Order: sequence, then structure tokens, then C-alpha cells
Amino acid sequence: MDDENKEEKKIPETEGPEEEQKAISKEELKELIDHKDVAGLRAVFETVPDIDIAEAADDLEPTDLIYIFRNVEAKNTASFYDELNQDAKEALVRTMTDKELVQVINAQSADDVADTVGEMPANLASRVLKAADKDMRKDVNLLLHYKEDTAGAIMTTEFLLFLDTATVDEAISAIRERGKEAETVYTLFVKNKSRDFVGTVDLDDLIWAKKDQPLSEIMNRDVVYCTTSTDQEEVGQMFRRYDLNALAVLNEDQKLIGIITIDDAVDVMTEESNEDMARLTNMEPADKPYMELSAWENAKRSFPWLIVLLVLGTFTTMVLNRLEAQQIFISLPILISFVPTLMDTGGNAGGQTTGIMIRGLALKEFGPRDWARIMWKELKAGVINGLITASFAFLWVSIEQYTGLVKVIVPDQPAYARLIVWNGSAFTSPVAGAFAAHVFTFAALVACTMFIAIVVSKMIGTLLPCLAAALKKDPALLSQPMLTTVMDVATLLIYFAMACLFFPSMA
Amino acid sequence: MDDENKEEKKIPETEGPEEEQKAISKEELKELIDHKDVAGLRAVFETVPDIDIAEAADDLEPTDLIYIFRNVEAKNTASFYDELNQDAKEALVRTMTDKELVQVINAQSADDVADTVGEMPANLASRVLKAADKDMRKDVNLLLHYKEDTAGAIMTTEFLLFLDTATVDEAISAIRERGKEAETVYTLFVKNKSRDFVGTVDLDDLIWAKKDQPLSEIMNRDVVYCTTSTDQEEVGQMFRRYDLNALAVLNEDQKLIGIITIDDAVDVMTEESNEDMARLTNMEPADKPYMELSAWENAKRSFPWLIVLLVLGTFTTMVLNRLEAQQIFISLPILISFVPTLMDTGGNAGGQTTGIMIRGLALKEFGPRDWARIMWKELKAGVINGLITASFAFLWVSIEQYTGLVKVIVPDQPAYARLIVWNGSAFTSPVAGAFAAHVFTFAALVACTMFIAIVVSKMIGTLLPCLAAALKKDPALLSQPMLTTVMDVATLLIYFAMACLFFPSMA
Repeated sequence: MDDENKEEKKIPETEGPEEEQKAISKEELKELIDHKDVAGLRAVFETVPDIDIAEAADDLEPTDLIYIFRNVEAKNTASFYDELNQDAKEALVRTMTDKELVQVINAQSADDVADTVGEMPANLASRVLKAADKDMRKDVNLLLHYKEDTAGAIMTTEFLLFLDTATVDEAISAIRERGKEAETVYTLFVKNKSRDFVGTVDLDDLIWAKKDQPLSEIMNRDVVYCTTSTDQEEVGQMFRRYDLNALAVLNEDQKLIGIITIDDAVDVMTEESNEDMARLTNMEPADKPYMELSAWENAKRSFPWLIVLLVLGTFTTMVLNRLEAQQIFISLPILISFVPTLMDTGGNAGGQTTGIMIRGLALKEFGPRDWARIMWKELKAGVINGLITASFAFLWVSIEQYTGLVKVIVPDQPAYARLIVWNGSAFTSPVAGAFAAHVFTFAALVACTMFIAIVVSKMIGTLLPCLAAALKKDPALLSQPMLTTVMDVATLLIYFAMACLFFPSMA
Repeated sequence: MDDENKEEKKIPETEGPEEEQKAISKEELKELIDHKDVAGLRAVFETVPDIDIAEAADDLEPTDLIYIFRNVEAKNTASFYDELNQDAKEALVRTMTDKELVQVINAQSADDVADTVGEMPANLASRVLKAADKDMRKDVNLLLHYKEDTAGAIMTTEFLLFLDTATVDEAISAIRERGKEAETVYTLFVKNKSRDFVGTVDLDDLIWAKKDQPLSEIMNRDVVYCTTSTDQEEVGQMFRRYDLNALAVLNEDQKLIGIITIDDAVDVMTEESNEDMARLTNMEPADKPYMELSAWENAKRSFPWLIVLLVLGTFTTMVLNRLEAQQIFISLPILISFVPTLMDTGGNAGGQTTGIMIRGLALKEFGPRDWARIMWKELKAGVINGLITASFAFLWVSIEQYTGLVKVIVPDQPAYARLIVWNGSAFTSPVAGAFAAHVFTFAALVACTMFIAIVVSKMIGTLLPCLAAALKKDPALLSQPMLTTVMDVATLLIYFAMACLFFPSMA
């Protein structure tokens, strides 16, 4: 036993590739099946966590999968089924006999069955629903009916509900009898005579209480709950904030009709932060694990946003195009060299703030109506950031020019050369001459642009997500691409306005 | 009671600003204290979750805070203290009498005390440690000794450990006696004679088991565990993967010395995804909530990365500067107009992939050694993305030119005009003439550049995080700024190489 434990220890600790992370590999599993080693197979199910076996089994042939179900004890395969991926589940539904299916499906939680059925082709879904017993079918249909990403869709209907007049002893007996069907027995739910939800009892409080105490005496009254239409992001937030083990879900009539347990809440939190992270990088969130995405599924997460950005980029292109018309580039080509750096700085400074906003709004660290306070916070931070970064930029741009990393280049075409003539180490044209005398003026131009761009960018980076949230839109959805465009244009305009100020002869 | 419940319901459900989210406001709390309404205060502690009261109390004067501790029952203030922010805790440690402090501190968990003490000024920390009883002090010192962000630093030393020969009845008695001191009684830990950790027992299994059964018969043997040095990111991952309620932490001698409970794991997961998200937007992660950061603390998260990007931007500036030397801009100024859009596309396409990589590596969806498989996946997705986006770009750039959104601008300075002369609707210079005849050639140039930039960018976006992970660095740390720089330079070079191909007369 100890040896097996050592074996498993490798799972969590290895930082290596996927293969090493698995306590059992696909090959090992396949070998046990090929050799019809039922004892070995059963031993694996006793000692290796289901999720690890399921990962090894996901790619097995249906005949091998069904072999597992026919030879391992049902108590072990029930939770194993739940951990398999959608494809494997569907393959099993296709190949199992009606009797086998009835057994496997009714051993699942209604919420897990609903999740799986919701993504199955219609013929398989109806096979599963036919296999489900009456209660399960009712529950699954109820759950399927709620909108995706709401508490209703992620809750389970299997929980223990007691009258507040029930005694501790009665509650313990009920747990012994019906506890196995419930999703959790660590939190018990309590209603009053009028069937209103009034509190929860933690299992450990039952153990500490006297046997004849009514639940009303030991229950927690300071409980939080949500309704079926509560957004799942909010559900995750409640678990985080209140350190819950389970959360009550009420319907519109304020009756308790479901609960959400911490393991499902953890999945939701992960899903929500995956989603925010995808949005931050201008992607559509994926609805399955990355390694299971096809090339097309993977590609279609990206290109819509690349196209949106391309279209939004038209504004930048137009502005740059109009500036060209004013021949600023031609009188001072070095200006162009700093356009990408300035744009990157503006975009990044705003992106930092947008990131904070998106995350803070998602975690409810603040609400959209706090925008003025946050603006003020970001304004102060932006000014400090701008001063430091711009001072550094002044120094750095001076160094770049002095060391020759960046050179003031004058076209050598004869016609053009008449306008600006390179003459040893100095320029003779008025514009270029002014410039040569003012390496520092140019560094100051870049620095000033940077300062203004950083401050403006932080302000816009604050406003866009707050605006989205105030309009009840996902702040992560539009903020990032909008910011890029707005800041590209803004930075260009600031830069060239500054250039005209610093080099008046050019304007 | 029902009414109070309705009151609280507002907490989770309102999407509004912070003020409304609170079940009790600072003003309400202050009023209770000012009116010395002890009964009202006690009622609040019975019906409002501690975290909500703590948030209202965080900004109270120390004298008001201490009033709460002196008038509310100790059983309620213990957990309330834990939810206060660091400033409020420190204020209390300063103002409490020795006796009060002893009571409050010893009612805390050792891990929470360690977290607080670790950030206190030395004089306050030593006051707390003096107030702690011997066991608590030992535990706190032990926990303080582990490196930040490891399992050792987040674990708690208060858990129930039984011999595998103990009976169910003995275990239940032990829970009744010592359970309140443990962080959780939902998971019990089991060792064998040689003090090796051999399994866990869930509390509900105790209820279902026979009273005289030894724990060895009912315990789970397929358990996972970590060591004190395991990174907290990995801890979060184990909770997610194995749906744990509590996780065993072993020391180097393989003995169980602590446990991590799900509520602490949830905090860790949130912290880790905050960190990844900060990195994705080129920021240093913050170690406290956003609203508590000072302007300077807020600013110093951003500017180091803005400066790094500025320095890295030198490469882009240099490349653009060298290209100017070849006068490509002057012969065909319209080229410049598309530089920002192309750079944004390249940066975004790579950023999407980097985001996937960082998240996938963090959640262990794959490991760094899977890089070849992922490269292949991203190459396929990149080609699809590139084809679609580039086709669209071809169309869009043609439209931009035909509608006059973007114009081919010819300088009007007389000297320059001799080189390229605008002549009604056609160009007379060879370069410009060729261009006017080939609006589509130019659209094709932008489209081809975009295709190559997207594919290259997705490849680099895959490699950088894998490389960082393979070198045991945080993939989120350097990938994003590096990618920006590499792709800015790469996009420029691709664009101008393509330009020379498409407009050979220019080269």
C-alpha cells in the first residue's frame, strides 16, 4: 500500500510532460485489458484516482472501454464514467446494453448527466434519458431548461433538506439512509413550516450537538444564497468570499430547489478565469480543453478578433495616411522610427489598467459605479508611471542617438538631397539643422508624447471596462480591442501634435 | 429571521456598486457603536456573514474596533478578526490588552496568524507571538519558516490524524473532543504504525460505517498528497483535478505535518490566476487587493515593464530606422500607413497563442515537453487563421483604397515632386505608375505579409512560453514582452521583404 502511495506521489510533484504526470498510462491500461487481467484492473481502480484512469482511458477503443465497465465493480465505474471526456462517454452510450446504461446513468448526479446530455447528438441523448429513472429524468430535464452559465444550469437537485423542527438524531438517521444519494452531506439545508429556506447545518455541528436538539437551535442563520438565474461568475465569487462548502439555489418563489457544491464552484471559477484570460488576449473562450480542440475549432477562436482588429485598424491607417499628406515623415523621417515603440507603450499602459479593471470587476473588488474613485487612483498611478517612464525615455532616446543605434537618415536621391543635404556631421537645411542642434529636443519630444500617452491610456483603460460593465456587457469582451485602436490613434495624434510644437519649422 | 434572510439576499444578487453589495454599511455599524447598542451589534454578528461585517469595519477607528471586541461574544469575534484587513488587525494588536490579545490570537488558526504576523512590523509581530500559547507559537514559527508560495507556507498544522487501527467509534469520540481545534473534520488523516501517511477517511464514511470497524477498512487509499516545498500553483491544480476537500502535506521524511483545506486552496487559485492575468498585461502581480494599493504601489507594478518594453523597442526602432535609410518610405509612403495594423495583427495573433500556452501550462493541460505537438496544432490553426484573415485583408485594403479611406499621397514639395509627379488620376513616375496600376498588388502585399506574420507569430507565441517553462521560469513572466518585440521586428522585416518582391522597381 505504501508502495502504491509512492507511485502516486509522482502525479502531483512532477513538473514534466503529460506522460509522467499520469499515475497510469494508456499503454499500461491497454495491456491489462489485452491480457484480460481483471484482478490487475480492479487493483488500479482501488489505488489510482478516477481522473487519472479516465485520462489514460479517454483514447481507448470503445470495445476496451466497455471491457472496463463489464469487469470492474460498479461502485468504481460510476465515478470513473463521470471523469471520461465527452467522446468516450458518447462511445459508451453507443455500445452499452440498455441494462448497463441504466446502471451507469442512474449512479451519476443529475447535474453531470445534464451537462453530458446537453452536448450529445439527439439520438444518444434520448437513449440516456430513456435509461434514466423517473426522478433522474425529471431532474435532468429541469436542469437542461436553465440558461447556460447560470446557477440553475450548474446546480444539482440532490441534497438533504430538513424541517427546522427535526432533531439532530433524526438528521443523522436521515443521512445514514439517504445521504449517499445527496451530492454532499457536509452541509444540510433547513426549511421552516412554510417551506422557506431558513438556514444550514454543518455536519460537524451535528456531531457536537446533543441528540435531541432541534436543528433550529444549531443552524447557521447568517447564510447566503443565490437564485437559479444568478450568473455563475457571481456563484464563484460567493464561494470565494464566504468560504462555502455548498450554496443554496432558490427559485423565483424563494423555495430551495437546488444546491451548488464547492467542486462544481471550483470548476466554474476556473472556467470564468479562463474566459477572462482568453478575452484579454482577444480570443473567444473555448468550451473544451485545449488538447481536444480541432484545428478549425482552435482557429475560429482567433480569426474573428483578428478581423475585428484589422477593421478597427483602418482608423490608425487613415490617420497615418493623412499625416503622410502633411509630409511630416519626409521632412523628418526619424519620427517614424519611434512610432511602434510609442504605440506599444500606449497600448501596454492602457492594457495594464484594463487588465486590472476586468479582473477587479469579475472578482467584485469594485463595481462599475466606483469608476470615479478608480479613475482618480489610476490618474495618480498614471502620472507617476508617466513621469518615471518618460524620464527614462528621455535618457534612452538620447543614448540611442549618441551611440548611433538610431541615425538621422537623409535620403540620398539627388532630387530630394537638394532639400536636405548631408554635410559631414551637420545638416544644412533649416529643419535638419535645427534637429542636429537638438538631439535633446527630439528625446524630449518622445518623452513628452510618452507621458501624455501613458496618462491618457490609463484613463481610457479604466473607462472602457467600467462602461461595458455599466451597460451590463462583459467588460472583457470589447475593452481590449477597442483600447488598442483608440490608443493607436491617440498616440499618433499626440505624437505629431507634439512634433509640431517641438519643431515648429516643420508644421 | 426570515426578514433578516431577505436582507442578506441583496448581497450576492446585486450587480451594483460596492456599497449595495454590503449587508451592513460602515455607517450602520458606526451608529450601533456610537449608540452603544450592544444588543444590536450582537444581532448583526448572528445574522451577517463575518466577511461582510469585516469589510464595513476595516476603516473604523481603533477605538470603535476595540469596542466591538469588548462587547460581542468571543465565539463571534474570533472569525471576525480573521476577516479584517491587515491595517485593522495591526491597529487591534496595538490597542488590545495582553489578556484580550491572548484570547483573540489563540482562537485563530496557526496558518492565519502566520500570514498576518509575516507582514507585521517586528514589534507587533513579537507582541502577537508572545500572546500565542506554546503550541500556537511553535506552529506559527514553523509556518513562517517555509518559502512563500509553497505548500508549507499555506498549510495549517491543525488536523486530525489517526492510527489505521483506530475504530470508527474512537474516531467519532476524538472528533467530539478535539475536532473544534482542527481546521477541518470533513477529512480525517490516517497513519500506520511507522507513522507513514496511508490514507484519508471522509466524515460521511464514518457515519455510514459500523462503529467497531477499523479505519483501515474504510479509508481511501487512492489519495494524493504534496510536500512542503510543492509550489502553491500545483496545490491549486491538485484540488481542481481531484475535487479535494483537504490535501495532505508531507515533509522530507514523508511524514504528514500539515494539511491544506479547500478554502485556502480557493484563495491560492484566485491568487495564481490574478498573477497570470497581471503577467499577460505586462504587470507585476499585487500582493493586496486593488482598492488598498497606494498610488505608488499601484504605479510600481506597471512602470518597470513599460521601461523594459521601451528598451526592447529599440530593436524595432533600429530596424525601422535602417529601412528608412533605404528610402522605401519615400518612394512609397503609403507603405507606412499599414505598419501599425500589421504590427497589431502580428502581436495579437501571437498573444492569443501565448495566452493559451500560459494558461494551459498553469492548469497542467499540457507540459513544456509537449511543445512539438502544440506547435503542430498551432501551425494548423495559424494557417487557417492566416488564410481567412489575409483573404479578408486583401478585400478590405482594396476597399480602403477604392473608397478613398486611404489615399496614395504624393508629396507636393517641388523638389520631391519632380521624382514622383501626380498627374490627374495617374502617376507618371515608374514606381508610382506601377502602383496605380496595381491597387490589388498592394492589397496582396498587405495580405501576404499578414499571412506570414500570423503563422510566424503563432509559432513564436508557442515556443516562448514552452521555453520559459522548460527553463523552470514562470512562462507568464517574459513571454508577453518578448513576443511584442520579436513580432514587431519580424513583421517589419516580412513587410518590407514582401514589398521589395511585389514592387521590384523599389528595391
